[in-house]
Amino acid sequence: MKTPVEVIEIKKRGENIAQRDLEDFLAGYMQGSVADYQMSAFLMAACIKGLSEEEVVTITSCIKESGNCRPKENFGKPVIDKHSTGGVGDKPTIVLLPLLASMGVLVPTLAGRGLGHTGGTVDKLEAIPGLKQQYSWADAQKLLERNGAAFLTQSDDIARLDKRLYALRDVTGTVDSIGLITSSILGKKLSEELDGLVLDVKYGSGAFMPTYEDAQSLASLLMKVSTFMGTEAKVLLTDMNEPLGEWAGNGVEVMEALMMLRGKAVERRFYEVTISLAEAMYQLAFPTDSRNVRERLVARLQSGKAYEKFLDIITAQGVAKETADNLDEILAPPELIGVVRSDRAGYVSEVNAHALGTLLIKMGAGRRVLSDGIDHKPGLRFLKKRGDKVDSGEALMEVYASKEIELPHISEIYTITDEDVKLPPYVNSLEKS
Amino acid sequence: MKTPVEVIEIKKRGENIAQRDLEDFLAGYMQGSVADYQMSAFLMAACIKGLSEEEVVTITSCIKESGNCRPKENFGKPVIDKHSTGGVGDKPTIVLLPLLASMGVLVPTLAGRGLGHTGGTVDKLEAIPGLKQQYSWADAQKLLERNGAAFLTQSDDIARLDKRLYALRDVTGTVDSIGLITSSILGKKLSEELDGLVLDVKYGSGAFMPTYEDAQSLASLLMKVSTFMGTEAKVLLTDMNEPLGEWAGNGVEVMEALMMLRGKAVERRFYEVTISLAEAMYQLAFPTDSRNVRERLVARLQSGKAYEKFLDIITAQGVAKETADNLDEILAPPELIGVVRSDRAGYVSEVNAHALGTLLIKMGAGRRVLSDGIDHKPGLRFLKKRGDKVDSGEALMEVYASKEIELPHISEIYTITDEDVKLPPYVNSLEKS
Repeated sequence: MKTPVEVIEIKKRGENIAQRDLEDFLAGYMQGSVADYQMSAFLMAACIKGLSEEEVVTITSCIKESGNCRPKENFGKPVIDKHSTGGVGDKPTIVLLPLLASMGVLVPTLAGRGLGHTGGTVDKLEAIPGLKQQYSWADAQKLLERNGAAFLTQSDDIARLDKRLYALRDVTGTVDSIGLITSSILGKKLSEELDGLVLDVKYGSGAFMPTYEDAQSLASLLMKVSTFMGTEAKVLLTDMNEPLGEWAGNGVEVMEALMMLRGKAVERRFYEVTISLAEAMYQLAFPTDSRNVRERLVARLQSGKAYEKFLDIITAQGVAKETADNLDEILAPPELIGVVRSDRAGYVSEVNAHALGTLLIKMGAGRRVLSDGIDHKPGLRFLKKRGDKVDSGEALMEVYASKEIELPHISEIYTITDEDVKLPPYVNSLEKS
Repeated sequence: MKTPVEVIEIKKRGENIAQRDLEDFLAGYMQGSVADYQMSAFLMAACIKGLSEEEVVTITSCIKESGNCRPKENFGKPVIDKHSTGGVGDKPTIVLLPLLASMGVLVPTLAGRGLGHTGGTVDKLEAIPGLKQQYSWADAQKLLERNGAAFLTQSDDIARLDKRLYALRDVTGTVDSIGLITSSILGKKLSEELDGLVLDVKYGSGAFMPTYEDAQSLASLLMKVSTFMGTEAKVLLTDMNEPLGEWAGNGVEVMEALMMLRGKAVERRFYEVTISLAEAMYQLAFPTDSRNVRERLVARLQSGKAYEKFLDIITAQGVAKETADNLDEILAPPELIGVVRSDRAGYVSEVNAHALGTLLIKMGAGRRVLSDGIDHKPGLRFLKKRGDKVDSGEALMEVYASKEIELPHISEIYTITDEDVKLPPYVNSLEKS
């Protein structure tokens, strides 16, 4: 058995650590015989020298096995989930769960809270009074048996190793390793005991991976490791150079998701990303049933079946019937307190999603550190998106809040140019290599 | 002011940290606002990406200033010290202090204890009963005023930052950075407020730097940083592919050093390395007085003046006169318990200094961890050195110990070849570039 120092030095030299030695090192960390300062030295070496696919598989397995996994009882259904690397206005999960569940897929999503400039599904759904999201796997199984889906939080007994590693990476400058990111994502997701996983890897100014190339590397590694570990994966690369959809906040994003669930018209890119993710999930669930998938998904939205499933899910999770009947009113934004207008005519060429995330934190709708509270009401509405033509003085964004706040200058958020803007495709798919 | 994570990330990218930011980071570590796990992430990034000369200067200054420095009162003498990177049988310090002090140089040496396969001067001198080596700078100054030299330990109030960094590096696989090694050596040595520093950088199988090239890089950085910080330095690169001198242990090494101090014949390489270091120290002390330096040094040894100075120093540090009068008896080795003999005729081509260090630990004369105790009596005597011709069955090494131990097989320590061996020069000097 290698000592912790020997394991660290192997990675420092850029060599690969044998599976058994890496397992011992990680187990030692959970048991206390490997100290935080030793783990952080390893993490830094991993960031600089990289991790092999085998090492990422080993770390992922250790993370998965370090906490409780979902019991493998699937109620005769394919078990599929999706994971998004996150961004401003990222709300497809709220649509996908009931939509796929209404078509016979089991979706045991473990969602997270928001941090920094990006929001989290758990925070958004808390805008619905009475909704309970924290369940043991035993209780969650009952919800899944009944409705095929449940909105669940990543509780403390899931992927314990990841919680400790993530906390350490956050304070030691060792976040940006695609190997460590991959093992963190998959270690948690695979504890749901999935048959398939759709990964929404976002790139652009509002994403964790600013460049398309980095997002592609992450996507490719996620797919390889997931597949190697026995869970087929599909990856979509989606643009996060501006917020997704018309709204950003908490309750307002749920409201926007409900519009889509009811078959109403929603912002085009939000719609397209969500339907593409739904298609990918359905294809993983029923690989031999590939005819007219999109048409059938849309029909579920338009028929009201998907929305009905949403109401079933939330009432099973503690929401009162009168709350469920009055969601539009409950989720409506507060007062319109300001409008950001264009100071010139032209085309919206860039939107600073980071600045929008920071504005949401100022409005109380986001958090700087995990212990911050959240105001579920405030929201931003985007009237113009990238590529849109605007006149001087035309409204670009509306700010809805319960208290007055200082609005940012337009130049902090929008870039307006004379030339028309060429937009990237809404969705790029990464096929298994 | 940069956060600890920002400072760590600059080094992770391989960029240089501004002096002010690095000072804040190191001060934060001493004050507790930078955690061990953050420092170890920084140290790993420094090991892999390297440190600039400016960064090494900053770390060296912070180490020096983190503890008590010697008061600058020099009693009208040039203040010179030497530092050795250590190895098996490394004993010149015991000769150099009294020799140089007898020629008007102030030598305020802070020596260390042995660890792993290398010994430490403090341990060796403890073989002399009654010798006190732990003094405050205030008390040490009185000894220095009286005798021009004192055998002192690195007490806890010297270079506090280095003690914490070294302990952390030892358990996080971040020892082998020439930048960190340089700052550790110079931070401590420069707290003696020197006018000049001679560095004995060893290379070879028994040294911390196995290759000549690595030793050269370390030597060059040590000289640049020391000079930049206002202390002129000379560097000698010396061979440590086998033990230095005829003896290794504790008391037996002091005995061997005393032979040289009395002008008696000693092993040629030990003699040559010691005289070369003495010449370099004298040249730094009296740069305009360069005539016949070696002759005058040798005369001091042969006249008994250097040995007289040694006796003055140790009696000032608590050694009784009757002890000083009976050192030969006190330092004599215990029983001869075994002899390692050659199993063939040929030439000694390689000596495994590491294996000898391990044997000394087994005999109780060295320590595995700093908390181990030391037996000052046992010793190894080397009858044949590299390049020597040997017959089959001829004795190579004698083992003197108070208890029986299992002797290593000759092949674990010696390589005997048919061809004569070309030896490197005893000493290479690195001139200021």
